[in-house]
This record gives sequence, C-alpha cells and structure tokens, in this order.
Amino acid sequence: MERAFGTDLLIVGGTAAGTAAAVAARRAAPGARILLVDKGHDVAYSTCELPMYAGGQIAAEEALVRYTPDTFSGTFGVDVWTGAEVVGFAPGGRTARLADGRRVSWQRLIVAVGAHAIIPPFAEWEEGLGPGVFVLRTLSDARRIRERFTTEPPAHVVVIGAGYTGLEAAVALGQDTRVSVVAPQGRLLPSGLSEPLSRIVAERLTAGGRITIRAARATGLDRAPDGRPLAVITDDGERIGCGAVIVATGIRPSADVVAQLGLRRDDVGAIRVTSAMRTNKPHIWAAGDCAAIPEAVTGRPQWIPLAMNAFRSGRVAGRNAVFSLAPSSGRPATLSPAVAAFAVRLAGLDVAHAGLRLEMARAAGFSADSVDIVGASHSRSLGGEDVHMRLVHDTKRGVLLGAETVGPPGSALRMNTVAALIRLRATVDDLEASDTVYHPDVSPLHDPLRVAARNAQKRRS
Amino acid sequence: MERAFGTDLLIVGGTAAGTAAAVAARRAAPGARILLVDKGHDVAYSTCELPMYAGGQIAAEEALVRYTPDTFSGTFGVDVWTGAEVVGFAPGGRTARLADGRRVSWQRLIVAVGAHAIIPPFAEWEEGLGPGVFVLRTLSDARRIRERFTTEPPAHVVVIGAGYTGLEAAVALGQDTRVSVVAPQGRLLPSGLSEPLSRIVAERLTAGGRITIRAARATGLDRAPDGRPLAVITDDGERIGCGAVIVATGIRPSADVVAQLGLRRDDVGAIRVTSAMRTNKPHIWAAGDCAAIPEAVTGRPQWIPLAMNAFRSGRVAGRNAVFSLAPSSGRPATLSPAVAAFAVRLAGLDVAHAGLRLEMARAAGFSADSVDIVGASHSRSLGGEDVHMRLVHDTKRGVLLGAETVGPPGSALRMNTVAALIRLRATVDDLEASDTVYHPDVSPLHDPLRVAARNAQKRRS
Repeated sequence: MERAFGTDLLIVGGTAAGTAAAVAARRAAPGARILLVDKGHDVAYSTCELPMYAGGQIAAEEALVRYTPDTFSGTFGVDVWTGAEVVGFAPGGRTARLADGRRVSWQRLIVAVGAHAIIPPFAEWEEGLGPGVFVLRTLSDARRIRERFTTEPPAHVVVIGAGYTGLEAAVALGQDTRVSVVAPQGRLLPSGLSEPLSRIVAERLTAGGRITIRAARATGLDRAPDGRPLAVITDDGERIGCGAVIVATGIRPSADVVAQLGLRRDDVGAIRVTSAMRTNKPHIWAAGDCAAIPEAVTGRPQWIPLAMNAFRSGRVAGRNAVFSLAPSSGRPATLSPAVAAFAVRLAGLDVAHAGLRLEMARAAGFSADSVDIVGASHSRSLGGEDVHMRLVHDTKRGVLLGAETVGPPGSALRMNTVAALIRLRATVDDLEASDTVYHPDVSPLHDPLRVAARNAQKRRS
Repeated sequence: MERAFGTDLLIVGGTAAGTAAAVAARRAAPGARILLVDKGHDVAYSTCELPMYAGGQIAAEEALVRYTPDTFSGTFGVDVWTGAEVVGFAPGGRTARLADGRRVSWQRLIVAVGAHAIIPPFAEWEEGLGPGVFVLRTLSDARRIRERFTTEPPAHVVVIGAGYTGLEAAVALGQDTRVSVVAPQGRLLPSGLSEPLSRIVAERLTAGGRITIRAARATGLDRAPDGRPLAVITDDGERIGCGAVIVATGIRPSADVVAQLGLRRDDVGAIRVTSAMRTNKPHIWAAGDCAAIPEAVTGRPQWIPLAMNAFRSGRVAGRNAVFSLAPSSGRPATLSPAVAAFAVRLAGLDVAHAGLRLEMARAAGFSADSVDIVGASHSRSLGGEDVHMRLVHDTKRGVLLGAETVGPPGSALRMNTVAALIRLRATVDDLEASDTVYHPDVSPLHDPLRVAARNAQKRRS
C-alpha cells in the first residue's frame, strides 16, 4: 500500500468555509502544512452568483471564481487537491481515504463539506438527473444549465420548488424562456417570508407574463426514452409539458461520509459544534453549511446555511485547528451567535429578512407578535415606492425578534439595522427612538422601520 | 384697544415642529383651544423638498404641501393664522402682539420659529435681497427661484456656499444652467464630511461640466442700477459674472423676537430646553430648529436642525404644553437624545453621515480616531460601485462615535445602522460582529460597514 500523504491540517471542502479556514489557518500558523481537498473541480467561487451565471447575466466565469485551485494554492501556500473525494476514515486513526485510493494522514481535520441539493426520487435517472434536468448548487451545475440554455434553449422550463434558489433560477432563466414554478406549499419563500409579503413577490414575478406559479406538489416526471423531460406531473393531476426541469426542492447538510467519524448531528443532519467550531471528537472541527451554529435570538444551535456564516465559522475553525497544534498560541477564537440575515433581488424587488419569523419565534417559546406596515422608500413626489415590512417582537418586553421586508432596490439594507439591534437584544422602543436619515430622494422622514416599531409600541400599550 | 384673542396654547411657527406640536396637543387634549400662527403664507410643507421644487424636478406645489392652512385647521381643529408675525410680548404677561396690531393672550406658549438663512451684508438690497438674488429656506423662496428660472433662465448662476443647501440648489438648477459654487472653506460640505469624502463628491458634481467649484470667499456683489446681479466678487480678486445668485451661507436659529421672553440661549443662539422641551421660563416650551436638544454621543445639548428632530421635539412640546394645563394628565413626554443622522442625494451619489465627525469628537473631549475604507455596494460583476466609508470611534473602548459615507443610491441607509448602534453605545466590535445581508445584486458579502469596523479593530489592537 502506498504511503499516506501527511499534513498538519486537512480541510475537506473548498468553497466558502473551507477556503476561509485555510486562509485563517495559514495566517495563524505560517509554518503549518495545510491540505484542502474538494471532490469537485473548483474552489473559492461565489455560490450566490451561480443563478446569474447560469442565466447569463454574469458573462464570464472568472467573475465568480475568486481563485483557481492553482492561484489559491500559490497565494496562501496551501496544497489544493480537486477531484478528491473523501470516501472513508481509518477507524480510530487520523487517516482519510480518497475515492482514487490515495490516503491522507492528518493531525487536525476540518469538515467543511457544505450542503447538497435534495433530489426527489422521481427526478433520478441512471445515478444522476439525466439530460435536461438540473439542480443549481455548484459551479458545475451552473455550467451545465448555461450550456443547455445557450445551445438549445427550451421553450418552457419547470422549476420545482419556490424557495430562493428556485425563484432566482426562474428569474435568471425567465428572461428568454417561459417558466412555471411549482410551489409545493402553495406560496413563495415559505421559509423566509410571511404569507402577505410572499404574495407581493408573487404578483411582481408573474407581472411580466413569462413566469407562472402553480400551487402544487410535483410527484413525477415524464421522460423521453433518452431521459429528456417531457412533462412534470403534479399531485393535482396536471401534466406540465416542458423542455427542461430545475429541481430546487431545498438543501441539506452533506454529512454522509463523515458519519463514519462519529460526529454528533442535529435533527436536520447538521454537525453539532461548540462556539469554537469544535465537534464532539478530538482534533476535528466543522464549519459552514454542514454545521449548526449558535443562533442569537434563541441562544440555541441552528442550521443557518448562509455565506456569511460559512465564512465566519470557517475562519474560527481554521484558526483554532492550527492553534491547537501549538498549545501556547493563545485563546481560541469563538463564533459570535448569528442573526440569520438574508436578501435576494427578484424581478427588481428586494426581498430580505433578519432573525426569526413569527412562527419560528413562537415555536422557540417566545410570546411573540408581529405588525405589518407599508411605508415608502422615499418621497412619493419623487418616485417613492411601497416598502412592506413585518416586525416580530416579544410581547413582554418588546424585544426585537425578527423582521421581513419587500420593496424597491435598496430596501434590503434596512434588515442590517434590525440584525444589529437583535444581536444587542434591543427593543421596539430602541428602534422607534433610533435616528434615521431623511432626504426626499433617499428615504422618508418616517422610515418604514420606525413606522413598524411605532405600530408595535401601540400594539403593546 | 381691541380685546386680545384668547387661546389655551399659542404655537408660533407653522412648519415641521409647530405643526407636530399642534397635532400632538390636539391628540392629548381634545378640548384645548389651540392657535398656530406663522408669519409666512404656508404651513405644513416639506422644507427638504424645496430644492427639487425650485429646480422643477417636483412639478406641482401640492406635492410638498401636506396641508394648506385651511385643511390643517379643519383636520386637527386648530386655529391657523398665516401672515401673522409676532413682534412682541407683554412684559411679564401672557400676551403676544402681532405686526398687524392683533393681540393673543395664551395660557401656554410653544416657540417653534425655526431657523433662517444667514444673509451676508453685501447681499442685502433695500431691506431684502433685490431681484435675481435668492435664498432657499421657505416655500416662498422656492417659488421665487422657480418663477425666475422658468420665465427668464439665467445663463450662469453663482451659488455662494458649499453646504447642503447650496449643493442641492446647484444640482437642481444645474440641469439647465451653468453653475459656479463658491466654496468659502475651499471644499464641499465641511460641516458634514471629512476632506477625502468631500473630494469624491466634488469630482462627481463637476464631472458633467455644468457645475464649477471655486475655492474662495465671496466678498461683494456687483449689481445693475435696478439691483440685478452682474457679478460675484471673491476674496482672491475674481469677478464671476452671473445672471442670478443663490445665497446659501448657512442658517441660524430664529430667536430674535423671543429674546424679549428672556429665554436662555446657547452660543449659536439656540434656545436651551430640558428633555421635555421646557424653556427656563414658566409656561413656555420650544421645539424645532430654534432649540438645542440633547445629543446622544456627548450627552450635551446641541443644535441639530434636522426635520426628524423638529418633528420629534414638536411632538414632545405639544403634548407637554397641554398636559401642563391639567396636571393630572400623567408623566411628561421626553425627547430621547438624538444622533445627528443626515443624507442627501447629489448627482446620483448618496452622501450621508451619523453622529460626530472626528474633529467634533475630539473637540468634545473624546480620544477619537477614524478609519477610511472603500468597499463595494454589491458584486462588482453585477455593476457594484465604490462605497466610501469613514468610521469614527473612541480609542479606549472602541465605542462608535460617528460615520460618513459616499456611494451609489441606497448607500445612505447604512448610516441608520450606525445611528442605531451609536444610540446604544455599541462598539466597533459590535458592528464587526453584526450580521449583514448578502446577495450579489444587493450588497457584498463583506459589507462596507463591517469592513470599516474590522479595520478599526485592527487599528486598536
């Protein structure tokens, strides 16, 4: 048997968390041997720009690839192996086995394997998806979609799923193609927006006539003998003819192979870690979309697969993993509890939220209430448009728990104010008393945030 | 002598603070007799929209007049007298005398006389400004400018002053006319922006070729025999030929007539008040641009003539003034200390700031430092532009003291996050640990706010 390649730190997974871990580890330990492996062909690319690349709004792949494997390796002095899938770990030892037979022995391990697209069984075809059926999770996925839509654009595409990825794909591809979105919960963005706000997004998306939303659950796929899709079948008996299908039914933590390591996971499959990103096993850290991190409002671990959390948790894991090689290196870094803060631009609308939705807050044990308001982006005399806002707060002390907004471009930044205040356990009184900039071209005298806070105050008094 | 008109509450001044006071008083005391007097012809209009009205970007006057005197009176059950200038107060008594001889006896008085434009002596002409010379402070001023620029547009206008009003006038009028801005301190916006950021604004303003900035102090005005301006004379010996002049050399609190009341004022002439907006004299409150209010960072009174403060202080004064008529009505309202938060849109750039500038912070006794960064508005692959940011913090604990930004439309809202954090005495660590929304079309993974906070952390460590 070939001798194992030896490294001080092995990082499995090369997108946001893995690369952030590698960079932080290199900075903290200039002499450490660091190896980054990824089963795909790319590292260090912007996952969030994939829909625009798939749809052609971003022309060149270089725009979303921050580093190639080579330039990453050269810049940070890190070994990078792509096409390197970890398929097993030596029981009890510190050796990883790759699909191609190579072995890596490590002193410290960071698991940053991310999350993967959920594939409903009916969409499977010969150990893959078959021609004309796509997911949109990796750069390779985006390349495949782009290739197909450039060379052989379908007249009609069905997007299965009405979450963020599905809607971004619908908007990106809907510029040249008719799109049907199959919304299994009957509405858009159920994980992020309340029903009233999701309805506003639906109105905007369908206004151009190219995108149709169908409240149904996809249950099957008719294919031609060569595997090409002919129609998506729904639970209400419809048969939606189409030339291509995007499967966007959600993601889940990719922790299958690491199950061998005996890492503790939560009920959605995310690896449990401390605030230092340590797992329950010695010498093993986890970061990014495969891990649960402390959430600020509840104080409990939560799976919040966002780029910011991947970057931050990767940085903490990288630093701590190499610090542990030299015990005198100082205090471990810790990850500050996160407030989920999300934004997307859909058909000219900002859609954003921060913290907990009302249902989440109640499920977490808060006596929570919400107010919905419509404010203005700026002076209506100068083209100001509606800004829809929901504010979620606890009824006892008025503590801010969450917010959502839908409005014209720029509206999303209001969620940053809410996220910063939530982190400090501020109340609706704090938000109402805050000062906001006012200029007729920029924002209204009574900013929607403060209007919502004032309504929440009235509701409580 | 005619008998005095009697009222429970007399409010002198009918723009933001005065009308807010009247509305709050009416709500708190449905039966009180309330009289609002203003020496001008209008009440309840948006001062901040005057430049766009003067320049024609807002077409109809109705767009900036929320209520006419009649509709305000009818809606809120308040007597409204316009063209009613208070010229004196009976010594020791509770009677005001108007220029037309009428007298008003009052139980409670709210002084909301605002601020007025500073007129340098060389710009005076026969107890006014003369034809072709304008200020831009009231709706009447804006009407005069619009009338002149519509009927007889000058080929070249000189704006004296490079503060916000001057630059807004320059941009609004510069769409059809060449404009020279005479900048007495050699740069733009000295009261709001640091030198590096003001230079970026200057570059943008002058890029179109219609606006020229001259670092000079205006010292004189050549006029034709009928008073029309021929040229502005500067201290460096230049003679800038022009057909019209906008005087925008600043504002100061309008407290001349109320000096008779013996109200204590600060060194800039703003009336000193408690956080309940009470003056040092019994039965008299003050609000709006004529009063100094508690500032959040220093905890000391400061003159912050912004619409938000006028509205809020007016609301507090109105409520407290009528509450004092019926002592059992509950606790007086108080004004929360204010964080100065300002924004303007100039030639497609957002310019905004919050809290204290570095020089102000040091003058107030803080051991203050600042960091300047350039971030991105959103993904550069999707048209993201530079966002310039200065963050001011104290060097001991890293407490946030202020911030400035210049960037594409929407950038100003970042100052709301800073303002809210300043109010809670948060630190650069809090800002760095805050969560910010990320989406390639909306905002970058590393928001300029957090980039600045991280640089401030490094500077401190």
